[in-house]
Amino acid sequence: MKIGDKHYRSVWVAEDGRTVQILDQTKLPYELEILDLNTVTDAATSIRDMWVRGAPLIGAVAAYGVALAMKKDTSDANLQAAYDELIVTRPTAINLKWALDRICPALKEVDPAERLTAAYALAGEIADEDVQINNQIGENGLKIIREIAAKKQPGETINILTHCNAGWLATVDWGTALSPIYKAYNEGIKVHVWVDETRPRNQGGLTSFELGSHGVPHTLIADNAGGHLMQHGEVDLCIVGTDRTTARGDVCNKIGTYLKALAAKANGVPFYVALPSPTIDWTVWDGVKEIPIEQRDGKEQSHVFGIGPDGTRTWVNTAPEGTTCGNYAFDVTPAEYVTGLITERGVCEASPEGLKALFEK
Amino acid sequence: MKIGDKHYRSVWVAEDGRTVQILDQTKLPYELEILDLNTVTDAATSIRDMWVRGAPLIGAVAAYGVALAMKKDTSDANLQAAYDELIVTRPTAINLKWALDRICPALKEVDPAERLTAAYALAGEIADEDVQINNQIGENGLKIIREIAAKKQPGETINILTHCNAGWLATVDWGTALSPIYKAYNEGIKVHVWVDETRPRNQGGLTSFELGSHGVPHTLIADNAGGHLMQHGEVDLCIVGTDRTTARGDVCNKIGTYLKALAAKANGVPFYVALPSPTIDWTVWDGVKEIPIEQRDGKEQSHVFGIGPDGTRTWVNTAPEGTTCGNYAFDVTPAEYVTGLITERGVCEASPEGLKALFEK
Repeated sequence: MKIGDKHYRSVWVAEDGRTVQILDQTKLPYELEILDLNTVTDAATSIRDMWVRGAPLIGAVAAYGVALAMKKDTSDANLQAAYDELIVTRPTAINLKWALDRICPALKEVDPAERLTAAYALAGEIADEDVQINNQIGENGLKIIREIAAKKQPGETINILTHCNAGWLATVDWGTALSPIYKAYNEGIKVHVWVDETRPRNQGGLTSFELGSHGVPHTLIADNAGGHLMQHGEVDLCIVGTDRTTARGDVCNKIGTYLKALAAKANGVPFYVALPSPTIDWTVWDGVKEIPIEQRDGKEQSHVFGIGPDGTRTWVNTAPEGTTCGNYAFDVTPAEYVTGLITERGVCEASPEGLKALFEK
Repeated sequence: MKIGDKHYRSVWVAEDGRTVQILDQTKLPYELEILDLNTVTDAATSIRDMWVRGAPLIGAVAAYGVALAMKKDTSDANLQAAYDELIVTRPTAINLKWALDRICPALKEVDPAERLTAAYALAGEIADEDVQINNQIGENGLKIIREIAAKKQPGETINILTHCNAGWLATVDWGTALSPIYKAYNEGIKVHVWVDETRPRNQGGLTSFELGSHGVPHTLIADNAGGHLMQHGEVDLCIVGTDRTTARGDVCNKIGTYLKALAAKANGVPFYVALPSPTIDWTVWDGVKEIPIEQRDGKEQSHVFGIGPDGTRTWVNTAPEGTTCGNYAFDVTPAEYVTGLITERGVCEASPEGLKALFEK
């Protein structure tokens, strides 16, 4: 999508055909900095340290990471080493495993002499497919927004709440949760987005940045505010993304998603989850019981980044000296709180039957 | 309560018998600074600009504000002017009105020549009564914690989640929600407190500061984390405060309280609200419909305070340039989500019957 007049993807191959480039998302939304990834370790670090984030983008960068590994050594042993190095970077991200399980076995079938070219081609395919998937998610979610618009007075605003960043910065392009919103905005539907700040890492700033760059009206709010807004009819629809969806429709997404789903249910607000099918983990049933939740450094909770009084990017420690901070990265929203799943194949009920009807062919 | 070895109240009269002193809570939890209030306008500013916060403390400072006004002029007209100046400082704080409606009419009955002395005496009474009330709230809430402790294995930790700061810094001493926790800790019950950060003003830092100063184990978490913790049995009990309680038991408290109450109900976690009876507004029934919610400056959402890399207190702007921020200060938790109300007279159901049984004599 656009930043100013220029169209970007969130990962791409430079003109040399080999260097992988990304936007440093730890510097966004304040500074736009392009980073070169030259080795598999660069790619692994970019995932682990969240220079890139968002399940689909992590998958694409992991695939390019394998391609970078092939630059150095196309042996079976190095292919396995690349897999091993990348797979451990983010334990909760199912796309990571999906992408690696696709590219690595496929490359193993290729003659080592041709693996380098094949690896870039396969990584490019994974990236292009993500764009296509998100485009379809957008089209399918757009129908839901159109239906809500049809029930409103002409010109009345549709208020949509979202949590974290499930926009184009979290995918290769378009985004998941934001894709239907971009499409609604593009066709002239009057939308306004409530953007959850999304502590502790404030990904709401990325969402505000994206929406603002594209011209979509939005308001950044504390994660605490959504319940109040829903009580007062100020939210017509919630759309969030997910890092992992279980076979029965539970969704594991950024910490705090569950609280919004509870509020949506209590106040009759539709709560949709947008997801590309690679985030479905058919091997998991009960998300609360079965999905391990990553605990990250407490410093991510205490130390908040932004632009200081002198105009430069810096941090402040918000916790009193000696305070222990907890940092749970995700939570699980049980299927019963999810109105529907917006996928590239269509919208379905968050249930084993709903998912099977769309995906079991 | 204690900071280091010294016992503090949150508002007191200096040795000169006239200057009112407070802790500047906008500088806490990083710097301990005592401020002098010399005029009614100082008192009004201290309430409006949140140098003091918390319903009971606001009431006490307002009462001392009237006393400060009497220093200058003890006429009926100035008494009315003091009332008018103070009453508009925080529209949602019922204690403010309660304290002013108590001290001003009482002073009107006093000969102007004796009003100054009477005003300090009455304000002191209001402060002392608050301490006594909070002590009783602590005793009554302690019984609930003891009951939970009795069901645990000996030595097993009781995890209590709280939102915002309803500790001694929000009252004159002891606090409301934290009072039972201090008492449990003091008698050797093994407690651990999950402290909600409480965006956008991060009052969780004050709670961490208080608990840490007193030695109570605690962990500061994002407001987003409580639902996940409750899903996983990591919360035995929630206790929060309230700025205003309706006749049917709805509670208006810091924004985000409602989301925690929803999660508590969904996960079978007891959700208690601690309150001094002056916060009960018998004229209001349906809190969601009837209580106006203060909207504050969006800058409180975007600009986060803390200690910067150079060790001094500063802010960072976390929102991308040009972002509109919303800032809703409170929300209402309907009575159906409240397990019980902990008051100075005892614990009751959050219902008209429950409240009447304790307070209608």
